[in-house]
Amino acid sequence: MYSAGDVRVEDVPDPVIQQPTDALVRITTSCICGSDLWPYGSMPAGNPARMGHEFLGVVTDVGSDVSGLQAGDHVVAPFAYSDGTCAFCREGLHTSCVHGGFWDEPGQQGGQAEAIRVPLADGTLAKLPETDAALAPSLLTLSDVFGTGYHAAVRGGVAPGRTVAVVGDGAVGLLAVLSATLLGAEQIILMGRHKDRTDLGREFGATDVVAERGEEGVAKVRELTRGEGAHVVLEAVGARPAYDQSYGVVRPGGTISRVGVPQYEEAPVGFASLFGGNVTLTGGPAPTRAYIDTLLPKVLDGSIEPGKVFDRTVGLDGVPDGYRAMADREALKVLVRP
Amino acid sequence: MYSAGDVRVEDVPDPVIQQPTDALVRITTSCICGSDLWPYGSMPAGNPARMGHEFLGVVTDVGSDVSGLQAGDHVVAPFAYSDGTCAFCREGLHTSCVHGGFWDEPGQQGGQAEAIRVPLADGTLAKLPETDAALAPSLLTLSDVFGTGYHAAVRGGVAPGRTVAVVGDGAVGLLAVLSATLLGAEQIILMGRHKDRTDLGREFGATDVVAERGEEGVAKVRELTRGEGAHVVLEAVGARPAYDQSYGVVRPGGTISRVGVPQYEEAPVGFASLFGGNVTLTGGPAPTRAYIDTLLPKVLDGSIEPGKVFDRTVGLDGVPDGYRAMADREALKVLVRP
Repeated sequence: MYSAGDVRVEDVPDPVIQQPTDALVRITTSCICGSDLWPYGSMPAGNPARMGHEFLGVVTDVGSDVSGLQAGDHVVAPFAYSDGTCAFCREGLHTSCVHGGFWDEPGQQGGQAEAIRVPLADGTLAKLPETDAALAPSLLTLSDVFGTGYHAAVRGGVAPGRTVAVVGDGAVGLLAVLSATLLGAEQIILMGRHKDRTDLGREFGATDVVAERGEEGVAKVRELTRGEGAHVVLEAVGARPAYDQSYGVVRPGGTISRVGVPQYEEAPVGFASLFGGNVTLTGGPAPTRAYIDTLLPKVLDGSIEPGKVFDRTVGLDGVPDGYRAMADREALKVLVRP
Repeated sequence: MYSAGDVRVEDVPDPVIQQPTDALVRITTSCICGSDLWPYGSMPAGNPARMGHEFLGVVTDVGSDVSGLQAGDHVVAPFAYSDGTCAFCREGLHTSCVHGGFWDEPGQQGGQAEAIRVPLADGTLAKLPETDAALAPSLLTLSDVFGTGYHAAVRGGVAPGRTVAVVGDGAVGLLAVLSATLLGAEQIILMGRHKDRTDLGREFGATDVVAERGEEGVAKVRELTRGEGAHVVLEAVGARPAYDQSYGVVRPGGTISRVGVPQYEEAPVGFASLFGGNVTLTGGPAPTRAYIDTLLPKVLDGSIEPGKVFDRTVGLDGVPDGYRAMADREALKVLVRP
């Protein structure tokens, strides 16, 4: 990505092992993320980035210090790399790894490609069994969108008997619905206005859909919750209006759990928004590596199908148009088969 | 209080029963709160308020619907009144009671007085045994400052093994230290620069004191926590610099628990402050009513002495000077014996 709206497919040198902890992976399945649309909408020129932070693939080579992987292993990569051994990784907060970082940062390679160098491979990559190709889309959601929706629900304290409001009907919002279902929520109100998406949300377990936004949407959610508001709000957008909607619909004593990357730094937190009602604000970049072990068996046995969020498939050449289609809300999430 | 700096002692009509759920209380012990200093510093003229929201007293009369109290009962009042029966009260969030409210709001009476009308008396007042007068200061802290410090610690998830930083060496900050001690914190770093106060903080269990503020203070706390930051930050001030200090010293994945009434509405919550490190922001007006049953036995058996935060005693006539002394940081907390 060279700048907003300018995505190009280019030939670059093949990745090589740079550190003894690296692995090289041939990418079999990748995709475009809703969060890729933020730079697609606003990136200034001058610092092109190699995009993509979700991929499945096959290990082709490993550095001399890699002990848990070998060529031929099928793997899934979380959207952040991490050593797996520091204090934060051991606590399951891999996105705060003291040696870790994010794909598509300066100097890093991206997942929307044929191959990639994976730093800290032992800590980063999770091995997968060889499976039917039909499972690939669902497995790929473990990289980011499913683990991110699940993180929102876990951090938000979703549990049996809880009323949950999900703000946003993108892939993460829909998989936050699925996650709330898995964690036993009693009522799940999905706030979104794209019918094809909210229909999938109902399939994932949403009990109510609120298409209204702003004050009208807030009033609707309050009406659906005996005037009290939702115990847990899962905010899966990252824009300021979504934040404002969240503290509008949360119940006193409840929790707003954010996983949409905030496109703002300051926001209301005082008496009138969070403090007065003892509202908790939580969330952050999801340590999706931590959730793979929990979620993988449910994907493998077919009891859930998070891969349904993909509604278009392209080859590498189709990536620029995939960005456009997602930005235009023509596609929900675009799968890439390099 | 007529306006900033203008506190007057006036004769007003004796309180009377207005609702069948009211009780009348003769106040035996009251005090001035750190939060009273916010209006004392900035209140515009035109809407005088009857101040004071912490008191011990003796019931003198009850309305016809009051069943749990009778004349002669010794009681302590939390800083908010509440029905004790709504969904929020039953969950222990009395400050969100659907019928409740706060003392010294328009139309309400204040605790810095000889007597007071207590709405929703059955839900609001907690009965006390008759005790030695020497216990009164410690019992009075159950109204607000001790319960508030305890709320901060409970909401923040203080537990054995946790490192806690307390921002603010006022009465609430010091009792947040005591609360963190009761909940088994391993390390308690008190951020404050008044030596007499931080000395009391050490007596309450602080293991470290950091007098530096701003970036220097943040660096000092990080140094004391192996560079990681504190698991839990208890923010007991309410000013923006205290908020900024809090996200500066919190550990990734940690929690900032605020009980200082925010004197700001907007503050940083984005990637650089809370989101990036998965930091949780929690807290609010403490439902001190909920904590009286837990904390009272420890006060009665003398194992803790939270009343040590009082370092001056005045009669009603001395209240205006008591405000001045607290505002000038000459007194930590002023006890009032009407």
